[in-house]
Amino acid sequence: MPTLYNRIANQSLDRLSALSDGVFAFAMTLLVLDLRLPEQTAIHSEHDLWRALAALAPSLLIYVMGFLTLGIFWNGQQTQLNYIARGDRDLAWIHLAFLFTITLMPFSTRLLADFVHYRAAVLVYWLNVLAPGALLYASWKYVSRHDMIQSDTPPEVRAAICTRVFIAQSLYAVGAALSVFGSLWSVAFIFAVQLNYAIAPRLPKRRSAVPAP
Amino acid sequence: MPTLYNRIANQSLDRLSALSDGVFAFAMTLLVLDLRLPEQTAIHSEHDLWRALAALAPSLLIYVMGFLTLGIFWNGQQTQLNYIARGDRDLAWIHLAFLFTITLMPFSTRLLADFVHYRAAVLVYWLNVLAPGALLYASWKYVSRHDMIQSDTPPEVRAAICTRVFIAQSLYAVGAALSVFGSLWSVAFIFAVQLNYAIAPRLPKRRSAVPAP
Amino acid sequence: MPTLYNRIANQSLDRLSALSDGVFAFAMTLLVLDLRLPEQTAIHSEHDLWRALAALAPSLLIYVMGFLTLGIFWNGQQTQLNYIARGDRDLAWIHLAFLFTITLMPFSTRLLADFVHYRAAVLVYWLNVLAPGALLYASWKYVSRHDMIQSDTPPEVRAAICTRVFIAQSLYAVGAALSVFGSLWSVAFIFAVQLNYAIAPRLPKRRSAVPAP
Amino acid sequence: MPTLYNRIANQSLDRLSALSDGVFAFAMTLLVLDLRLPEQTAIHSEHDLWRALAALAPSLLIYVMGFLTLGIFWNGQQTQLNYIARGDRDLAWIHLAFLFTITLMPFSTRLLADFVHYRAAVLVYWLNVLAPGALLYASWKYVSRHDMIQSDTPPEVRAAICTRVFIAQSLYAVGAALSVFGSLWSVAFIFAVQLNYAIAPRLPKRRSAVPAP
Repeated sequence: MPTLYNRIANQSLDRLSALSDGVFAFAMTLLVLDLRLPEQTAIHSEHDLWRALAALAPSLLIYVMGFLTLGIFWNGQQTQLNYIARGDRDLAWIHLAFLFTITLMPFSTRLLADFVHYRAAVLVYWLNVLAPGALLYASWKYVSRHDMIQSDTPPEVRAAICTRVFIAQSLYAVGAALSVFGSLWSVAFIFAVQLNYAIAPRLPKRRSAVPAP
Repeated sequence: MPTLYNRIANQSLDRLSALSDGVFAFAMTLLVLDLRLPEQTAIHSEHDLWRALAALAPSLLIYVMGFLTLGIFWNGQQTQLNYIARGDRDLAWIHLAFLFTITLMPFSTRLLADFVHYRAAVLVYWLNVLAPGALLYASWKYVSRHDMIQSDTPPEVRAAICTRVFIAQSLYAVGAALSVFGSLWSVAFIFAVQLNYAIAPRLPKRRSAVPAP
Repeated sequence: MPTLYNRIANQSLDRLSALSDGVFAFAMTLLVLDLRLPEQTAIHSEHDLWRALAALAPSLLIYVMGFLTLGIFWNGQQTQLNYIARGDRDLAWIHLAFLFTITLMPFSTRLLADFVHYRAAVLVYWLNVLAPGALLYASWKYVSRHDMIQSDTPPEVRAAICTRVFIAQSLYAVGAALSVFGSLWSVAFIFAVQLNYAIAPRLPKRRSAVPAP
Repeated sequence: MPTLYNRIANQSLDRLSALSDGVFAFAMTLLVLDLRLPEQTAIHSEHDLWRALAALAPSLLIYVMGFLTLGIFWNGQQTQLNYIARGDRDLAWIHLAFLFTITLMPFSTRLLADFVHYRAAVLVYWLNVLAPGALLYASWKYVSRHDMIQSDTPPEVRAAICTRVFIAQSLYAVGAALSVFGSLWSVAFIFAVQLNYAIAPRLPKRRSAVPAP
């Protein structure tokens, strides 16, 4: 029966991944769906159209940020699932809760795009970044406690996954706190943190490749 | 030819799972899509925005409930499919009918969110919970009768899947019946049942882990 | 290099299946998305709400029909792909064209739901059923001609796939022709044909199981 | 640990494919979603409905073009991923950026459908074709430089992937440049290039099949 159970569990991780990819793909595409086309009746010249498109640029920037957020969490969830040996019902529900927070992301991203000068929008966005982070952390704690991590996972990876969530969430919290000075400071800081997570990780990897025997 | 046929059948279960994950992912994301952003012209201060967001809270709670429902049925279908050895055309159509009821879920969830004080909305929602439950039950009966369950499935699992559907659906029926006292009683009861299904299963598992030799 | 090529080709069939499942899942969920909720301001009693929901019934029936159509084509494509040994660029484009006709299905289904008394809507719907059928037929002809069918596929399966498309499309054409008597005759006939495809296939299979040695 | 790492990397390519298929499936279906149904109140006869449907034809043609674009990039990404032996975080982010440009495609396609006589719309569309092309090129350069291509990939394939992107993008650039003569020239040229990519590749393959010993 352990064989049977393992097979089921693994398969269930596969379906969890598939469901997650569907939710992420959908949320990513929905973000941009809200870019409203200019009204045909309001456009009478090339100049009008360029101007209308330029007016969309700030929203587009917010959507880029929303996409980065989704990409970061997709990467984070995927990395975890890769190290998990088997799933169970509780883990499935932790990840379903995680996915629920992901489905809220298009809403809070559009809220931020429409109300970027309001602290309330920044704080809602931050809560929507805090929640999936906390759930990924809970997921890792859960699999650690129940011995569901793949046995050949090196200890430094086990620690690194927790550390990474902590550092990222601390930076986001700093970003949210910056909203006392103005919501745009928050947005700029969070955006910078995200760009760093998307683009920077190449650097340490190279360095760490040097001392390897 | 049995080899060929099995391969086809298995692959068909894979594609059925993939289609199901797509439908569930989509339905889950659509739920929240209907959270309407406040109108920019109606918001003049932080206070206005907080108030507008707070006004969305009851809808959000209904969406959480809709998400729980979808999560429960996703888990239920997945558990079944994991124990099924091969698919055929009839099974595919039972599950397509199941998926059709799932695609109706965003509609009935939004209906409930908009008309939570009406018994009609509660009953439609309950019918939309009854139908996929009945189809999952029909699916399990079908594979039992046609000997399509994996041969190493323990008998207690075979029985447990049916029992689970029955108990859950009985509780939902009680919930629907509570609407004679008021629709909110129904919603609260169904919500409690669902939370129990999502969060509680951890307890018995621990207990049952004790007597294992 | 044949090994490499086969691996690539197979993988490409996997991704074609995954893309198809995504498109079908999406189109299936979109169908119902158009069920418009009653306006909150127009509903003042349980009776109003039941009446508003009852008014949606004809549209819902058309959506069931659209879902059946999608289910039939999903089954048809899946059956074919299961017998295909490897893919290539041309086959991918035949199936991409097939998927394009599938993405049109929510449009023509909604068109039929809104204009069920118009022949034009019935004919557009029929064209949208004819096109994917023709493309599945083209796909099967293509893999037959280029020897891309799995070598252990029994000859009767090879013929059956063509025959099935032909019979189904002939029935749909009859259905479309019935629109000279009135569009509702067409819709009823096509609906009956589809229900037959979804529910009836169980019978011949049992009979054919008898003579097997 | 290399074994573990490879497994993780491969799995990550699988999930990248799954996410990509979801985004493409969604973007493909969204294209057509914007085909607006005629208003029921504006239609009083078969003739009205045919006329209203005929008025949608130009938009439909643009959507076909958008679908071709998505199909070409889906094929292009898939071909690349088939030759890549393992993934890493940087590659994931290159492909996430690629997917972001894909999620913009429904927007720029609808923009082109609504404003086909404006150069601005053509240039935005072209930028949206240039960006994913550039990112696919960057992806291939990245895996070449970091030795992540499958070792049995023939050298001519390595070169062909780059050449193909270059030729296609040069043709698109010519198409975009044609907008100085009128935006419709651009659209017609780009459309012709895409049809060629979707339909023509059959020819060289046959010819190349001849000299094979």
